[in-house]
Amino acid sequence: MNHLGLWHGGDYYPEQWLNEPQILEEDLKLMKQAGINTVTLGVFSWSFLEPEEGEYKLSWLIDRVNLLYENGISVIMATPSAARPKWLADRYPEVLRVNEEGVRQLFGGRHNHCYTSNVYREKIRVINQKLATTFSAHPGILMWHISNEYGGECHCPLCQEAFRKWLEKRYDTIENLNMRWCTAFWSHVYLSFDQVESPSTIGENMVHGLNLDWKRFVTEQTADFVRWEIKALKDAGAMQPVTTNFMYDYKGLNYKKLSKEIDVVSWDSYPLWHKNKEILTARDNGMQHDYMRSLKKKPFLLMESCPSSTNWQGVSKLKKPGMLELNSLHAVSHGSDSVLYFQIRQSKGSSEKFHGAVIDHYGGEDTRVYQEVCHIGESLDGLKELAGTEVKSKVALIYDIENRWAMEDAQGPRNKGLYYKEAAVKIYSAMKKLGLNVDVISMEDSLTGYDLVAAPMLYLFHSGIEDKFRKFVNEGGKLMLTYWSGIVDEWDSCFSGGVPHDLMDVVGLRSTEIDGLYDGEYNHMIPKSGGMEEIRYECNHLCDIVSLKGAEVLATYKDDFYHGYPALTKNRYGKGVAYYVCADGEQKFYDDFLREVIKANGIVPLVKGEIPEDVEVCSRHSDQHQYLFFQNFNREPVKLVPEMIDEIKNGTLIFGELREHGVIGGYQTLVIKREN
Amino acid sequence: MNHLGLWHGGDYYPEQWLNEPQILEEDLKLMKQAGINTVTLGVFSWSFLEPEEGEYKLSWLIDRVNLLYENGISVIMATPSAARPKWLADRYPEVLRVNEEGVRQLFGGRHNHCYTSNVYREKIRVINQKLATTFSAHPGILMWHISNEYGGECHCPLCQEAFRKWLEKRYDTIENLNMRWCTAFWSHVYLSFDQVESPSTIGENMVHGLNLDWKRFVTEQTADFVRWEIKALKDAGAMQPVTTNFMYDYKGLNYKKLSKEIDVVSWDSYPLWHKNKEILTARDNGMQHDYMRSLKKKPFLLMESCPSSTNWQGVSKLKKPGMLELNSLHAVSHGSDSVLYFQIRQSKGSSEKFHGAVIDHYGGEDTRVYQEVCHIGESLDGLKELAGTEVKSKVALIYDIENRWAMEDAQGPRNKGLYYKEAAVKIYSAMKKLGLNVDVISMEDSLTGYDLVAAPMLYLFHSGIEDKFRKFVNEGGKLMLTYWSGIVDEWDSCFSGGVPHDLMDVVGLRSTEIDGLYDGEYNHMIPKSGGMEEIRYECNHLCDIVSLKGAEVLATYKDDFYHGYPALTKNRYGKGVAYYVCADGEQKFYDDFLREVIKANGIVPLVKGEIPEDVEVCSRHSDQHQYLFFQNFNREPVKLVPEMIDEIKNGTLIFGELREHGVIGGYQTLVIKREN
Amino acid sequence: MNHLGLWHGGDYYPEQWLNEPQILEEDLKLMKQAGINTVTLGVFSWSFLEPEEGEYKLSWLIDRVNLLYENGISVIMATPSAARPKWLADRYPEVLRVNEEGVRQLFGGRHNHCYTSNVYREKIRVINQKLATTFSAHPGILMWHISNEYGGECHCPLCQEAFRKWLEKRYDTIENLNMRWCTAFWSHVYLSFDQVESPSTIGENMVHGLNLDWKRFVTEQTADFVRWEIKALKDAGAMQPVTTNFMYDYKGLNYKKLSKEIDVVSWDSYPLWHKNKEILTARDNGMQHDYMRSLKKKPFLLMESCPSSTNWQGVSKLKKPGMLELNSLHAVSHGSDSVLYFQIRQSKGSSEKFHGAVIDHYGGEDTRVYQEVCHIGESLDGLKELAGTEVKSKVALIYDIENRWAMEDAQGPRNKGLYYKEAAVKIYSAMKKLGLNVDVISMEDSLTGYDLVAAPMLYLFHSGIEDKFRKFVNEGGKLMLTYWSGIVDEWDSCFSGGVPHDLMDVVGLRSTEIDGLYDGEYNHMIPKSGGMEEIRYECNHLCDIVSLKGAEVLATYKDDFYHGYPALTKNRYGKGVAYYVCADGEQKFYDDFLREVIKANGIVPLVKGEIPEDVEVCSRHSDQHQYLFFQNFNREPVKLVPEMIDEIKNGTLIFGELREHGVIGGYQTLVIKREN
Repeated sequence: MNHLGLWHGGDYYPEQWLNEPQILEEDLKLMKQAGINTVTLGVFSWSFLEPEEGEYKLSWLIDRVNLLYENGISVIMATPSAARPKWLADRYPEVLRVNEEGVRQLFGGRHNHCYTSNVYREKIRVINQKLATTFSAHPGILMWHISNEYGGECHCPLCQEAFRKWLEKRYDTIENLNMRWCTAFWSHVYLSFDQVESPSTIGENMVHGLNLDWKRFVTEQTADFVRWEIKALKDAGAMQPVTTNFMYDYKGLNYKKLSKEIDVVSWDSYPLWHKNKEILTARDNGMQHDYMRSLKKKPFLLMESCPSSTNWQGVSKLKKPGMLELNSLHAVSHGSDSVLYFQIRQSKGSSEKFHGAVIDHYGGEDTRVYQEVCHIGESLDGLKELAGTEVKSKVALIYDIENRWAMEDAQGPRNKGLYYKEAAVKIYSAMKKLGLNVDVISMEDSLTGYDLVAAPMLYLFHSGIEDKFRKFVNEGGKLMLTYWSGIVDEWDSCFSGGVPHDLMDVVGLRSTEIDGLYDGEYNHMIPKSGGMEEIRYECNHLCDIVSLKGAEVLATYKDDFYHGYPALTKNRYGKGVAYYVCADGEQKFYDDFLREVIKANGIVPLVKGEIPEDVEVCSRHSDQHQYLFFQNFNREPVKLVPEMIDEIKNGTLIFGELREHGVIGGYQTLVIKREN
Repeated sequence: MNHLGLWHGGDYYPEQWLNEPQILEEDLKLMKQAGINTVTLGVFSWSFLEPEEGEYKLSWLIDRVNLLYENGISVIMATPSAARPKWLADRYPEVLRVNEEGVRQLFGGRHNHCYTSNVYREKIRVINQKLATTFSAHPGILMWHISNEYGGECHCPLCQEAFRKWLEKRYDTIENLNMRWCTAFWSHVYLSFDQVESPSTIGENMVHGLNLDWKRFVTEQTADFVRWEIKALKDAGAMQPVTTNFMYDYKGLNYKKLSKEIDVVSWDSYPLWHKNKEILTARDNGMQHDYMRSLKKKPFLLMESCPSSTNWQGVSKLKKPGMLELNSLHAVSHGSDSVLYFQIRQSKGSSEKFHGAVIDHYGGEDTRVYQEVCHIGESLDGLKELAGTEVKSKVALIYDIENRWAMEDAQGPRNKGLYYKEAAVKIYSAMKKLGLNVDVISMEDSLTGYDLVAAPMLYLFHSGIEDKFRKFVNEGGKLMLTYWSGIVDEWDSCFSGGVPHDLMDVVGLRSTEIDGLYDGEYNHMIPKSGGMEEIRYECNHLCDIVSLKGAEVLATYKDDFYHGYPALTKNRYGKGVAYYVCADGEQKFYDDFLREVIKANGIVPLVKGEIPEDVEVCSRHSDQHQYLFFQNFNREPVKLVPEMIDEIKNGTLIFGELREHGVIGGYQTLVIKREN
Repeated sequence: MNHLGLWHGGDYYPEQWLNEPQILEEDLKLMKQAGINTVTLGVFSWSFLEPEEGEYKLSWLIDRVNLLYENGISVIMATPSAARPKWLADRYPEVLRVNEEGVRQLFGGRHNHCYTSNVYREKIRVINQKLATTFSAHPGILMWHISNEYGGECHCPLCQEAFRKWLEKRYDTIENLNMRWCTAFWSHVYLSFDQVESPSTIGENMVHGLNLDWKRFVTEQTADFVRWEIKALKDAGAMQPVTTNFMYDYKGLNYKKLSKEIDVVSWDSYPLWHKNKEILTARDNGMQHDYMRSLKKKPFLLMESCPSSTNWQGVSKLKKPGMLELNSLHAVSHGSDSVLYFQIRQSKGSSEKFHGAVIDHYGGEDTRVYQEVCHIGESLDGLKELAGTEVKSKVALIYDIENRWAMEDAQGPRNKGLYYKEAAVKIYSAMKKLGLNVDVISMEDSLTGYDLVAAPMLYLFHSGIEDKFRKFVNEGGKLMLTYWSGIVDEWDSCFSGGVPHDLMDVVGLRSTEIDGLYDGEYNHMIPKSGGMEEIRYECNHLCDIVSLKGAEVLATYKDDFYHGYPALTKNRYGKGVAYYVCADGEQKFYDDFLREVIKANGIVPLVKGEIPEDVEVCSRHSDQHQYLFFQNFNREPVKLVPEMIDEIKNGTLIFGELREHGVIGGYQTLVIKREN
């Protein structure tokens, strides 16, 4: 991405220490020692940039940028919109959000501002332009960081009005809206767009078309605000790329849409290590890395991560020795070009004073955390050449936010939990166990180039996905669909004539009924063919009952009145194959089933031989080379199988150590470089 | 009830398909095929009947009624008040409810309207009269269905004012109100009726007399609205009987009061089959059937039931094959003259789009559900003669809503759960196991004609129940009272001088203290006499400590400082007997105890011989015949005892099949007809 | 405290029975019979003292006081501010509280009044003066009881204004406030005091300095109101001492501050007997008694206790025979000069109608509870000489409310639970098991005179506690600190340079990191020395990792990456010793560890020999005598060890019975008198 190689550093708040220059001096010394080459400045600095309305003070920031640059540290410069000064809220109440019950919030926290407010937009325009004018030509500025962790929504009159305009543009006539939202149900017909109100727990919250469109509007309004912020910067001469930092599995925004507004995707990752088995946490977090990378199919930035324990989590668990590096390189292995921390120095007070930092309240160099950060600085320096390399995946998992919004908002078939994310994680984990790179994509994305696409629980069909699937399979692709798919159109209105909509011939069956299982209630899937014989797999939550229209049965249900009915099927269509999983199978089912699918269809994993349970394999590619990562998420050493050891020995070990007998140490990472 | 025999059909919403005439045509065909003879129209149709204020469009409805009638399908015509059009809310905000925190709700959902608002009343009057004028003479109209599932409450200024007027009428002077509500406690004395406010979580919610009267007022205000709706219909010439549909175990209204406003009781039944043992669900739901029937002691209507899975429940569980018929005939066996479904055709969108229906989104005839509905159509046709037959019960269970309101609102003796309903269900279940028809009545009802009356946890005494009990026992009745009875008067004010109030001589004891048991804490009841010897019964939640005044001890406590104290007593009074159960015994206690009571007092069950655990026996009567139902709630076949087989063979089997060796098939129903 | 000896009686509400004179007469008779010498009048009587604004009616109260006095019963006279009449709320809405979301509450409950409102203050001033004028010279008035269970807070404009004034006085300049609250974080800088708003869930709730100061302000505003009430009484001639009744472990107010406004501390104790092992409940409640006594280091009053079951608790559990006396004498053993009940006679209605009382709804003398109360009356009469005697403690436990406020409000290191109170109770229990009297003090208190001070989890340091600790140890004291201590200053701002702040040399170590453990996750502490060998103690929740600076290691961690690191240390400093407990050890750890500490440092318990697990030992002292209490909290008899029996036999048994072989009966109390 630039001359620095992999970026190492994090969020830095010099404005908290302006009265303590010796602290700022100490910071510089410790950052340099730790191999830090990048810091983010300006997040939450508004009160220091414009302490009173119209009085701008940028000198402290200019001084800091200069000094950092002189010391070899570049800057990601943030716009300050994520928290507004008190004077702004006091003078212009319209900037404060209104919640869905119609209550104007008081000043407080952060992200408490209306994205529609012209006042807010005007104020942010001016300050962004001041920043761009000041810094756009500075050689120490790497990138612009728009606001911080966008999120939330506002129901104020300005937003209501904008929502109505957005609906009018979308539907043209109110009759069209009424038809799409099925407002005939419960006499909910609108006579004009003026009558529409945003969803509310004290008003309407059961018109799912309204709910879904409101979520889309919130994304659009946020995107519009992002555009506004970026335009202000560019109008004032900013040339650097822009990013904004995303959050873990955040359901409030459609990141696929938002990612189109920015140049580089970045995100803030705070996995709960040491809670479950580490490899499970690695799968879960790795899927998020892959999701972020797949948004633009380009390297991303790990914008925030915690060097120690994270104070806003339920339990502030220390990272055990080695975990910080493992976590950092895990991001790199999935496509990150950075390891950035929140935060360089702990604040003295307020709500994140106990959040881990490179430099803690004690302030000395002799802390375990600081020493580990220094070590990572060296490691990243040694892996410099990875910057800008790409991740290539032959398989993709569709994990779609619009689908999720609709499915989780709908009533039925299991209000006590649909387990969409869990189903996606199970499939993703099975793919990683087999040694595959995985793209995690949305229905908007192209399927071209993939060998296998898995699409669990695709309740809502949009972006012409039926046609994409048909074409994909017809041309030889391997598709895996599941229960509860193709049920509704993009307005959450049910398809008639049978489901999965427009794909019954592709999958060779029709879903006729779906049974909800209580918590603790199970059915079982019994495989028919050799590979999985003598085994039964637990399934729960949802069991689809299908009527075959040509598909081959690979497994049947063991229990209940649908004993003997198909539980897993396969259908040849065109040059390809479509699998259909009828029920929410356990992890082992997906592991075994996907192994068969990979084998049967000649999909080649990154390495030969069985990957040990606690080890993850990933790869990045440059034009000439492949960089293969082996990461051991077990605290104890793990032995590799001979085929894998041979493969490693055939490459060049550029990071880490392969011990005698092919053992990787606890929490250790190996990086092998080999010719493409 | 009419020429149709048992009604078969359900809620139908042609207004959702006015633009798709082929759908409406298909509906007709499929309904006829399925033996459907009745549909409910007009629920939630306001937006289609009066799309803009004052513009009425009834033609689509007239056409539909005509077409249905021509095809042999009659109509239950609903008034549209359960959901109002958006224009009505926008133009007249007073029709929107105000919650108990004083917040006016926004438009949304359904039932969100003030019952006091003159605007709302006037609007509904006009539209009801339009409907009545149009349809009262139509031969296809069977009945008027007033609104839908009345419920909820409004705290707006209009309702506050009405509440104060209602209180003034009730109490005459404020001094009287102060005395009844014990406002001396916490200095809560009112100086005038004007000072009274409805209960509120941000105001007063601990004056139990106020809370109780507020609930009574809500019922009265709802009843007044029902009267208003009916008057509008009748003023415009409506002659057909009227109903309104009630809900399962609904605590918001006193249905006993409400039932007086209507001609026929109907209700909406959605049991959670396949969750617990089916027979337990059957008991629970059967008790509700009996409660609904006992409101008017006449056949009722099953107004809604689900042909498949119910989407608003936590888990949308499919009905296993046979369960739909079993469920339908269960209603008939308890006195229903109909089997009506919600709904004929699934809506395409909005909150109930996944609610089961006769015709689903797929739309074909080849669905399991549609086939089962057709089969039920045939079954009901074969049982036609049952229409209008009555249920006769020798035993009654008092399950009183005013008692429940007061008991559950009071603080103590077990805020973590009193288990009133559970106690009632245990007694009801024991009665059904013994083969008895049961009336489920309130304290308002007469006790005349019953052999046995059980009245668990009658905390609040009203309607002169003390005198009724005394007279009932004196004249030979068998009464069963329990712990926590006769504690307060109808204002929730404690009786002095000992409890159960005015019945200490009838039961032969005084309750002196009551012990609350923690969850998981148990005591035991040890029977003294032969029949139950060598057994101990668990009891929990509440244990009454009584001082004997003549009663005979049938069982004693095993544990705690009241070890050896009476736990079950019997007292002869006049020509009758009063039993007193001191603690919340387990099901087996009630089973064994009631068997003894029945035997000792010569109460004769419907059939001879022990009824198998999973089988329920009910009966209906015409002037000439008795119709005896045997329903097997086990999915597996069950064998009857020889005495019972003989009894069956002595009657005429008019429905179902008794297999070899006296076996009833899984989920199967038998109906035997015999001379009275 | 006066001529009555120990006070026996409780809250009495004759205003509820003014229309039933025979009840009032009966009350007098039953009170006299039960040895009742004191009642509290006037709590919640405002509606009867001033039924309409400006119309005062005190005659009923005068009559009552006279009659009681003539019958030997004295009066604690309450001011009526705890509940206001409806007319006051209706006419002056400013007296109603505003919640933290800015919503003005409706009239209802009690304690729903703004402490800042001038209207409310003026109204209460006038009525308090009426009471004082009327009763100050009456010989039957023992004491003034200001309001009732002060609590809660108000966010109305008047309170906001008062808060800002309080802040201005505290901080002088807004720059100072900004620095102390660290408002630089999230751009929260204030430009003037006018901009400050109270904490709110719909506004700011994450600026911990603000939260903490708001709690302090609430205490100050309440204290100011108390002063106002007392001044009104005194201005009108009241001479008697004043009290106000505190609540169990109440977190809303700083009782240490509030206790300075009153002459005598009193509190309302409702332990949950018969839920856990009784001795555990006794420890928990005993610690509260000691906390209340330590506020002024003088005898306190048990102002409320329940003669039977407590209706507002989750389960209304009866007190088993003997428990009421045990509970009553438990208070006396810890320093109470009274046994007072809520309430003399049960109210007929409203929210506490089922709260236990000396006289219940039945009303007879032949109740178990009344008989037990009579017995206690006799017992207290026999222990008369205890009135006014003191409790002397050589050990103190610091349990500080400001520390708790800050620690529980902070984010991290364990938002799922810090277990501060539990840690304090474990240490307290260990001390009591060893036979020590314990003072439970705050950081404001002096440490002079104690042999041992234990201060668990002293997160926030205030009142110069660092210096107090240093001096205390230096002069020979034994100090026990723990993990998570000395982290922040009084503004919740972190100390730099290492923790525990300014005490690293005293404890001989620095805390470097702290690990949060998940629920169900454990580490273990392994003692190094003989006394505790072969044992491992579980620890959980929080594990401190320390770097030694001279301390001796007494135990190490068994598990995790800090296996072998110090888990318990000891450091000699000056003439004393400072212990440091690194982790949240189990009860047995504290039991064993404190036994060693006591032994090693020559601290002498109240009695020789091992105290049985279920027995508690306490003592009170007059100038000449020591009164030693032995209380058996087991329902079964318990045998004492020979050393203890000898000690008892050397004193004079003035209460209870020591059975053969040194056995104390179940739930029995012994009191031994011996020369000092």
